[in-house]
Amino acid sequence: MPATSIAEELAKKQREISVSEFFERNKQILGYDSPTKALLTVVKEGVENSLDACEEAEVLPDLLIEVSKVDKDEFLVAIEDNGPGIVKKEVPNVFGRLLYGSRFHARRQSRGQQGLGISGAVMYGQLTTGKATKITSKVEEEDTAYYLELILDTKKNMPSRVREDRVVWERAHGTRVEIPLKGRYIGGKQSISEYLKATAIVNPHARVTYKPPEGDPIVFERASEELPPKTKEIPPHPHGIELGTLMQMMKETKSYKLSSFLEEEFVRVSARVAKEICDTASLDPEMKPRSLVLEQAKALHDAMQSAKLMAPPTDCLSPIGERLIKKGLKNVLGNLRPEFYAPPVTRDPSVYTGNPFQVEAGVVFGGDLPPDQPIEVLRFANRVPLMYQAGGCALTQAVGHVDWRRYGLEQRGGEGLPFGPAIVLVHVCSTKVPYTSEAKEAVATVDEIMEELDLALKECGRRLKTHLTKKAHRAKTREKFEIVQLILPRIAEKSAKVVNKKVPVLDATITKIMGVVWVDETIAYDKKQKRHTVTINVHNFTDAGKKLNLHLLLPRGITAKDIDPKPAEVREDGKLTWDLKRIDSVAKASVTFLLEGLDEAEYDESDIYVSGINPALVVGAEPLPGDWELNYKEFEIEEAPAPAEAEEEGEIDYDETEEALDDE
Amino acid sequence: MPATSIAEELAKKQREISVSEFFERNKQILGYDSPTKALLTVVKEGVENSLDACEEAEVLPDLLIEVSKVDKDEFLVAIEDNGPGIVKKEVPNVFGRLLYGSRFHARRQSRGQQGLGISGAVMYGQLTTGKATKITSKVEEEDTAYYLELILDTKKNMPSRVREDRVVWERAHGTRVEIPLKGRYIGGKQSISEYLKATAIVNPHARVTYKPPEGDPIVFERASEELPPKTKEIPPHPHGIELGTLMQMMKETKSYKLSSFLEEEFVRVSARVAKEICDTASLDPEMKPRSLVLEQAKALHDAMQSAKLMAPPTDCLSPIGERLIKKGLKNVLGNLRPEFYAPPVTRDPSVYTGNPFQVEAGVVFGGDLPPDQPIEVLRFANRVPLMYQAGGCALTQAVGHVDWRRYGLEQRGGEGLPFGPAIVLVHVCSTKVPYTSEAKEAVATVDEIMEELDLALKECGRRLKTHLTKKAHRAKTREKFEIVQLILPRIAEKSAKVVNKKVPVLDATITKIMGVVWVDETIAYDKKQKRHTVTINVHNFTDAGKKLNLHLLLPRGITAKDIDPKPAEVREDGKLTWDLKRIDSVAKASVTFLLEGLDEAEYDESDIYVSGINPALVVGAEPLPGDWELNYKEFEIEEAPAPAEAEEEGEIDYDETEEALDDE
Repeated sequence: MPATSIAEELAKKQREISVSEFFERNKQILGYDSPTKALLTVVKEGVENSLDACEEAEVLPDLLIEVSKVDKDEFLVAIEDNGPGIVKKEVPNVFGRLLYGSRFHARRQSRGQQGLGISGAVMYGQLTTGKATKITSKVEEEDTAYYLELILDTKKNMPSRVREDRVVWERAHGTRVEIPLKGRYIGGKQSISEYLKATAIVNPHARVTYKPPEGDPIVFERASEELPPKTKEIPPHPHGIELGTLMQMMKETKSYKLSSFLEEEFVRVSARVAKEICDTASLDPEMKPRSLVLEQAKALHDAMQSAKLMAPPTDCLSPIGERLIKKGLKNVLGNLRPEFYAPPVTRDPSVYTGNPFQVEAGVVFGGDLPPDQPIEVLRFANRVPLMYQAGGCALTQAVGHVDWRRYGLEQRGGEGLPFGPAIVLVHVCSTKVPYTSEAKEAVATVDEIMEELDLALKECGRRLKTHLTKKAHRAKTREKFEIVQLILPRIAEKSAKVVNKKVPVLDATITKIMGVVWVDETIAYDKKQKRHTVTINVHNFTDAGKKLNLHLLLPRGITAKDIDPKPAEVREDGKLTWDLKRIDSVAKASVTFLLEGLDEAEYDESDIYVSGINPALVVGAEPLPGDWELNYKEFEIEEAPAPAEAEEEGEIDYDETEEALDDE
Repeated sequence: MPATSIAEELAKKQREISVSEFFERNKQILGYDSPTKALLTVVKEGVENSLDACEEAEVLPDLLIEVSKVDKDEFLVAIEDNGPGIVKKEVPNVFGRLLYGSRFHARRQSRGQQGLGISGAVMYGQLTTGKATKITSKVEEEDTAYYLELILDTKKNMPSRVREDRVVWERAHGTRVEIPLKGRYIGGKQSISEYLKATAIVNPHARVTYKPPEGDPIVFERASEELPPKTKEIPPHPHGIELGTLMQMMKETKSYKLSSFLEEEFVRVSARVAKEICDTASLDPEMKPRSLVLEQAKALHDAMQSAKLMAPPTDCLSPIGERLIKKGLKNVLGNLRPEFYAPPVTRDPSVYTGNPFQVEAGVVFGGDLPPDQPIEVLRFANRVPLMYQAGGCALTQAVGHVDWRRYGLEQRGGEGLPFGPAIVLVHVCSTKVPYTSEAKEAVATVDEIMEELDLALKECGRRLKTHLTKKAHRAKTREKFEIVQLILPRIAEKSAKVVNKKVPVLDATITKIMGVVWVDETIAYDKKQKRHTVTINVHNFTDAGKKLNLHLLLPRGITAKDIDPKPAEVREDGKLTWDLKRIDSVAKASVTFLLEGLDEAEYDESDIYVSGINPALVVGAEPLPGDWELNYKEFEIEEAPAPAEAEEEGEIDYDETEEALDDE
């Protein structure tokens, strides 16, 4: 047939697709590809909603998750929270409409943002079981709860009420949703309990009770009684905002002047900055925003991008924080007893297309972690654990892009997941996490985010490397000790015979030959008092008196008590500095302090640095990183003669001996 | 503040989110995470639309893609086709509304299905450049084309016309769309030209001209003048359909009887089957579909799932086909000259949630392919190459789940992408491909599809293994030949001396000692006549006459001409069988035939099998697979005495010699 009639034919077929029809047909996009995944997804959506609700109401979350088996492949998932509850007229919309919600237009970190999650779960439930979802919600000022059974009309994307009622409910306020669905129940890495465990780790202020289809309930108790600071809503940051969005904003703004528009509708834009931007774009600050033509808008946009601006405020974000990451990792690892937890990295916030975001990473190494498998990557976004789509996720990919061979892990060709006894935790939080799909299972590879991830991971790598080097160095020195113990006496004997003197006492000499300043620490923990007692010893195994600065970097938010001796400096960021006066040859100096209120797991190794001494001499501590480095010449003191007893004894040429040893 | 006011607070914030607002904020979901990817995505959406349009109009596609640089980071993408054109009133909707299209509700294979692609591109264009998209479309009966400049109003998700006009256009019919966008132009694996190349491979009926921002135009000429058979629309298949969907259908059906409802609204349901299903569900076939209560619907649903049904018809699908896959692979590989192209596998269609789908796979090995890297996976869905999200894609994951060590590739731990000089091509086609996101970059891991992929890939693996074994076997036998050539003469000499006779002529003897039936082939190609001449030789290197059946499996759709000698059987599926009468010891038999109209690359190795002989004796051909196997006893003929000349000469104990050789 001729093409023209086809055009007509096709025209007849053209029609609008309702958003719910779309997702009903493409339920995999919402995370419902398989019965197994479906069950987890429904739980996930419910839990995230509940946590968000509680946090917005500034209530310590107390969640109940019940999963019960109805039929061979049918389950009932109930999620109950102590949140503020939902006012009657909004209940049907919240649960019975896709793309309906309160957080989409708010520029602040929250778990749900799309208004798709819970209504998607309701839709999947009715699609697979033909049954309605039951909601019970109570707001504080009412003494009964509102009860609703609802179905989502996918043709119209509107809720249809099956049955409603008022019921008595013991809770003061909160919401309970019961979703029937076709699913499959599994254990293992991607199980509901693993998901809830991971959730508890990054939400230590939440209490989570889980009643599985079989077996006893599991309770994840609160690890902390304080809510994370409530995230604040902010206007967009000028950096990276799209031209089209800018033009849209100028159309809709209420400001009459371009300068005030910039000042009021963007964060980090002061009157001065606003003026600067206008100047750079050679636009009149007085002109009406809506009056700009395309070229002018472009000029403005360019000026905004090139303007020097402060990073966005951090109070719109809620990172997990270094302490919690470490704690979290330790929880996850249970009894694998890793040998090393690298101090986690929390990067400063950055921006992509106007959205602030922040990246965190931590690495764990050794112990009973499987040495011959790809490392495990724990992924989190806005405090939500990501369980699926690892391969398609920016977080995993960023790990694969780092050349871990440099940091002591095995990695074929220097890319892809490295092999080794290690676990990496990565968290991205943002006012808008760019998920690859509505299922929110993976983060998209946005350039700005990839860069931050790369920096964070490399820093983790360096910390890992440092640890491994320190370990190797210590081992080598120990070896040296042992060798010296063996050989030196023989040399002494021989030379004593030669010069016909009695064999000298060598203990002091031996240590001096080592030519190292040995730093080690002991950490004692008092469970009852929740108190760490940290002691750091500095042994001078050289033949001269030494003087040095000892630095310690405490994790953010931890302060030391009863510090002895008194440190020369105590810094905001947790850096302690001691000015250790002369330590005689073969003598030792010690510093000690207390840490209170931490779990034992939270502190197991100090971050020790030295300055004011040749770092090559020091074993067990790192040279102080460049930015803090002090020219150590000024500290160097004239080599004092080695203490007496050594003198009396027959002279031995240390250098030769050392060479002899080096030949070993 | 008390939780109640919070409930009110939140209620105020609740609101609907327009689908275009949603995707504007989440443009990464449509494939616009980075400028680089954005440029490819826009091209992709345009090309897929054009191909679909042409195929629906049954026109051989002739596409023009122009990418030009407007500004440092701004490009203009123009896509032009010779499709049927779009009638005036639909142009704004097709390009200016998300979730609007003609293919979403049609159950047949097509590239676009969501009604999101091209309008999403328009939206991204205006978002990043603030500029309108220009469309020119002409339907055959009109002598001028309709020209429209449009913007997508994201608040309403409706098109807004900026300018319209009628213009003269040389094309008889077709559509041209020009989209301005912010992007980055790159080369390499994920470049536009690679995408177009891959597209040309699986769409050999399309002519594609590409004008890149710099450099000469590239033309991918048509490889075939015939359109792929137009895919037919079908009703859903009862297997795997969701209960909710079934209930919905029963609400909306026009049929008055349950039985006729089943018969009319599902494929593969005859009157008889319909009745059976009703019986199994113990429902009255006469009852009104809309009158079923939930329990009855459930019973019906179960009965439908358990019913024995034919697989869905294949005419709704359009697989690439074994010939094309092989051709395609050869194109991709250019001059890497791989040593082996495993005959590709096209599985029979199967069903997931009522949607027919079909899986194809092919593997290539050796030659100049990099031996020390992970194998490359070429992914296709509905004849569209998938360029991103490899890690998150069912196709890649299925490859990783196969234990390739069994098939001769190196693979740590037996999972993940194996290493070796190999490329795997995987294609899934379906009336609805379950993409993980609207960007259609990756296929979701739906259980039914994973199973089919696994079977197809393992079959490829076996074929690869067979080749490698055959290769090894041939090599080993050759070695044996050489050894025998060296040793036997010496033994002969010695024994001749001993028995004081003249040294025997050994040529015949030597071959007999080999004790193998050697099968090889030569393929000559005549470019002018596009003709392959295939000759297969069977050498009997044993000491007795042999008789056997030679089988050849030609690729689907290829028929042999001038077959000599006349085969005993020629089968539909391309299987040829010769009954080779006695081949004397040291003699050889040959068969030959012609293949016409194929490119040289399309046939380079025959699939040769033998039966009627102890397969252990045969080198260069496989034993005929079980299902065709014939008990070869009946063919075995009494061992004839070895031909004369050997007798006359001094007797040699072959066995001993063989042992001697085996010791080598």
